[in-house]
This record gives sequence, structure tokens and C-alpha cells, in this order.
Amino acid sequence: MAMRDAILNFSKQFKYRPKIEGGKVKKYKSYLVAGMGGSHLAGDIIKNIASEVDIKIVSDYAPEKVEIPKTLIIASSYSGNTEEAVDWLNKSIQSGQPVVAIGIGGKVVEIAKQNGVPFIQLPDTGIQPRSALGYSMLAMMRIIKLNDLLRESKRFNNILKAKETEEDGRQLAQKLKDKTPVIYTSANNYSIAYNWKIKFNETGKIPAFYNVVPEVNHNEMTGFDVKEKSAHLSKPFHFIFIKDKTDHPQNIKRMEVTEKLYRDRGFSVESLELSGETKMEKIFNSLILADWTALHIAVLYDLESEQVPMVEEFKGLI
Amino acid sequence: MAMRDAILNFSKQFKYRPKIEGGKVKKYKSYLVAGMGGSHLAGDIIKNIASEVDIKIVSDYAPEKVEIPKTLIIASSYSGNTEEAVDWLNKSIQSGQPVVAIGIGGKVVEIAKQNGVPFIQLPDTGIQPRSALGYSMLAMMRIIKLNDLLRESKRFNNILKAKETEEDGRQLAQKLKDKTPVIYTSANNYSIAYNWKIKFNETGKIPAFYNVVPEVNHNEMTGFDVKEKSAHLSKPFHFIFIKDKTDHPQNIKRMEVTEKLYRDRGFSVESLELSGETKMEKIFNSLILADWTALHIAVLYDLESEQVPMVEEFKGLI
Repeated sequence: MAMRDAILNFSKQFKYRPKIEGGKVKKYKSYLVAGMGGSHLAGDIIKNIASEVDIKIVSDYAPEKVEIPKTLIIASSYSGNTEEAVDWLNKSIQSGQPVVAIGIGGKVVEIAKQNGVPFIQLPDTGIQPRSALGYSMLAMMRIIKLNDLLRESKRFNNILKAKETEEDGRQLAQKLKDKTPVIYTSANNYSIAYNWKIKFNETGKIPAFYNVVPEVNHNEMTGFDVKEKSAHLSKPFHFIFIKDKTDHPQNIKRMEVTEKLYRDRGFSVESLELSGETKMEKIFNSLILADWTALHIAVLYDLESEQVPMVEEFKGLI
Repeated sequence: MAMRDAILNFSKQFKYRPKIEGGKVKKYKSYLVAGMGGSHLAGDIIKNIASEVDIKIVSDYAPEKVEIPKTLIIASSYSGNTEEAVDWLNKSIQSGQPVVAIGIGGKVVEIAKQNGVPFIQLPDTGIQPRSALGYSMLAMMRIIKLNDLLRESKRFNNILKAKETEEDGRQLAQKLKDKTPVIYTSANNYSIAYNWKIKFNETGKIPAFYNVVPEVNHNEMTGFDVKEKSAHLSKPFHFIFIKDKTDHPQNIKRMEVTEKLYRDRGFSVESLELSGETKMEKIFNSLILADWTALHIAVLYDLESEQVPMVEEFKGLI
């Protein structure tokens, strides 16, 4: 099973040393990561970890003119052919906006070479974009010059033990059977919540949603204040609270209280605690568990975890 | 019914002329709106309409030190007592960061007065924060000096015809019976999608989710690629596509194709088109329809549309 191998071998991605080709990249005041799905995961996580750097993630087409002062555009597409990332690369070149490309090849690498734009060519090991998070992140950290994080991530090849958490993922998948997951983190850890959500969608092929505390408490929560006639709407959900000891004390309390209120109303609730020594380690430990859980969801429903046929059908139609 | 009156009288909010008291506010390069739920709606919409202005919305507590160069913090809380907004106001004052407060009174107005911080005191007409969108937006537009938009919105008292769309909202509520809405817009119109979602949560008291195109096509969509054993997970949802003729042509196509793929799979799908002459008018027309739909959802399930008892219970526990 290719997805299983991708999870087991994930830690090896951190042996990779990204190399900028085709030009030099200087330090910028701000960065805009243009990437979709699997490629914007990496940007979200870096934004979460390197909170001192001004990073904006844009998951849409580019405007006609790209004029963002003191900002480097990072057009990131694992396949190299994602329409939106290619659009940002082209429009940035036309507008004279500094830009750099990331991809295993495809259009973004071709366009970069033709236009003298710096690029990083990722290793092509045949995995799905969402499994290539290590490669994409290392490339972005290299471009943004996050040298401390690059140094820290070298250890990950030895630290991340995917095999050990498979059973936890399998058990969580069992609990989630016939339910739609809703994942909650603090606002600060939104990249973790978002990652879990899309792993369920892409690998597990099931609906999944996410939100963050404290915002949840100002609206979403009220949608689960079940009364007799509307209670059946809330039944299909299973809530996963992902907690972090370093969260703001009020947000820790908010998650505890939200969990209590949901349990009081009879909902299926799961409480997970982030584990690891550094912020980055915590994130990856959690994402590996998400990978296993999503994989075992696909197993439960006899679904194919690796491919995304609806995306192929979609691409054929647009 | 108080919520019904709030919707019918919404257009009258645009007669309001916000006044900055307690100091002057100069023009800034960037703005950070600190606000939750109903109060961050206004920020989201302004960010959508005034895309040329650098506005960041933060729905979380403030960091210990607020040091964001060339940026004005707008601490917005309708009640004036929202913990997170009060936190931003206090920390900004302690850090010497320029800040301005918005509220009907409460702590934010009190703290502003005591510390010589400029503030806008909103009219207190007894409505819920989420119904006070007009007041909050006008106040923010005044602070950010969006004079063209302020001028445009003067007409809204005559243009927005809430009464005329109630029947559409009632019919849509009927179609949504026993379903959980998932609202889709283009990334550019995310504030509309988000507003619909929270209206369903707060006024309708039902679960609701949202997402935006093109991101939907890279992950969420795949979660609805139903196979025999997982099909029951997708059945409880009703998808609402909110379309805009001025969207990027590729996003228009993406929405059409996503809608087709969902219909092919047998899902309940609703397609709405934004109507109105300007961007702001389109947004408000859509939000009034959201208000009516959410109100009639509450009626269908015998729920109380006005109050949010779970929020009160929550506040008592944290």
C-alpha cells in the first residue's frame, strides 16, 4: 500500500537538503506563499512555527498585476502544474515582482528556467502532494532563510517514529466509524486542525471540518446547542479536541469547557494532547497520527486511500 | 419577535453617523481588527470590499507585547465586554501601540476614556451583536477613513429591502429542513460564506460549515466522493453555492463544475446568485437573505432565534 509506505518513510524526507537553482534569493520583509491543498499545508505550518516572520498564504488565482512591495512570492506546486501557482508565477514575472518557484518539475520549473527565476526542484519519489510535506517545508524554510528550523528538522529523521503510532490511528479510526470529524485547536495551532481536516478528505475520502478556539465559542458552538427537534443534525459528528499545554491559558480553559458542554449534550468527543519537545515536533507527531487515522478510515470503508479520482474528473471538466 | 424586527430595521442602521471621541485618529498603513463573532464579521466584510487597504482580522487574545509598526489596532466589541477585544485594548495601551475602541459601552469604552484612547460609542438599540453589522461596519469605515464607502452606504437605508426577500428565506429554510448547510463562495467572497455559516449557528441554532473555491477543489470535494460504504456520511448535508458574476472566470467555472459533480452524486444543492449594483450592496442583499433563512430555520425547529443560551452558560464556566 503506497500511502502506508509514504507515512512510514515520511521521516526520511528530512534528510533532504534543498538547493536554490537559477539565481540567488535575498532576505525579504514579507513572503506570500501561493499554493493549494498539499502545497499550502507547508506554508500554514511555517506560518504557525515562525510567527515572527510575515508570511501570507494565498490559495487563489493571482490578480492581473502583482505589486506587493518588499515581498517575495513563493509559487509552490508539488506537481509543478497547479493552475493557481502557475498563475502567480506568470503574473509575478510579468509584473516584475520578485518570485521563486518550488516543484518536482512541471510548468513551474520550466517557466522559472526560461525566465531566470530562482527555483527549488523537489525530489520526485512518486508520493502524493499531501505526503510530501517534509520536502515542501524544507524548501520554503530554505527560501525564507529559517536556518534554526532547518537545523532542528535535521533531527527529525531519527525522532519521528511513525510505526509506533499506527495502532493509535487505527483505534481512532474505529471510533470515528459512521461519523463526520470536526477538529478543534487553538487559533495558534490552526495549521494542525486544517491538516487533519484535509487528510480526512483526501486520504479518508470522508467529509471533515475544522474550527479554532476562541472563535468557536462565539458562534459555531451555538449550532450544537441541541434541542429535541434539531438534535438529529448534530448526531453524525465526532469532535476531536487537539490540546496544547503551551496554548494561552484562557484558550486551554475554553477548550475544556467546550468539551464539557459537548459531552453534556451527548456528543462523541475525543481529546488529544500534542506531544514533543518543540513546536515543529509536536505538529509532525500530530500529523502522522492524522495520516494513520485517515488511512484506517479508508480501510474501514473499503476506499482507496492513495488516489483522488474526483480531482482527476474535476480537472477534466474545467 | 425581536430578531424579525432587527432584520426588518437593519437598513435604518445606515442612517447612523459614527463619531470618533476622546482623540484624533490619523491614517495608518495597516489595520488590525481584534474582534470575535459578530464583531469580526464587520472586519471581514470591509477586508473583502476595500481590498486595497491592508487589514488583518485577529480573533484571539493579544500577545503580551503588541508591537506592530505602522499599524492601528481596532479593538471592536459590540457589548464592549468581549474578553479578547478587551485584552487587545489593554495590551496595546501597555505596549504603547496605537489603538482605538468600538462598542456600545462596557469595558472598552470605559478603558478608552480612562486612558485617553480614541473610541466610537455605537448606538445601543437592544439588538444582538450579529444584527448590528451596519453600525460596526460604519464605525470601522470611519476609523479607516473609507469615505467613498461611507458615502455609498448612506443610500442603503433606501436600497436594502428586507421585507421583499423574507419569502425566499422561508422557502430556502424549508429545503434545508433536516440538513446541515455547507456554504461555498469564491475565496474573494469568503466573508459572505462565513456570515451565512454563523447566522445558521447563532440564529438558526444548527450546525453549518463553509469553504471557498478554488481551495475546495483541492481537498474538501474529495471527502464527498461517495462510495457505497461511506455514502451515508454525505447525506446530511445541503450545499449552497453563492455565485458572483464578477468572480475570476476560472472560479466561476470551478463552482459550476463542483456543483455538477455534487448533483451527479445525488446531493442536495442550492445555487444562489449575488444581486446588486456594488460589491457592498451584493454582500448585504445576500446577508439579509441569510438572516431570513436562519430565522425560519429556528421557526421550523421551534427554536428561539434571538438568544444564545449556550454562550451564556459557557461564559459562566470560564
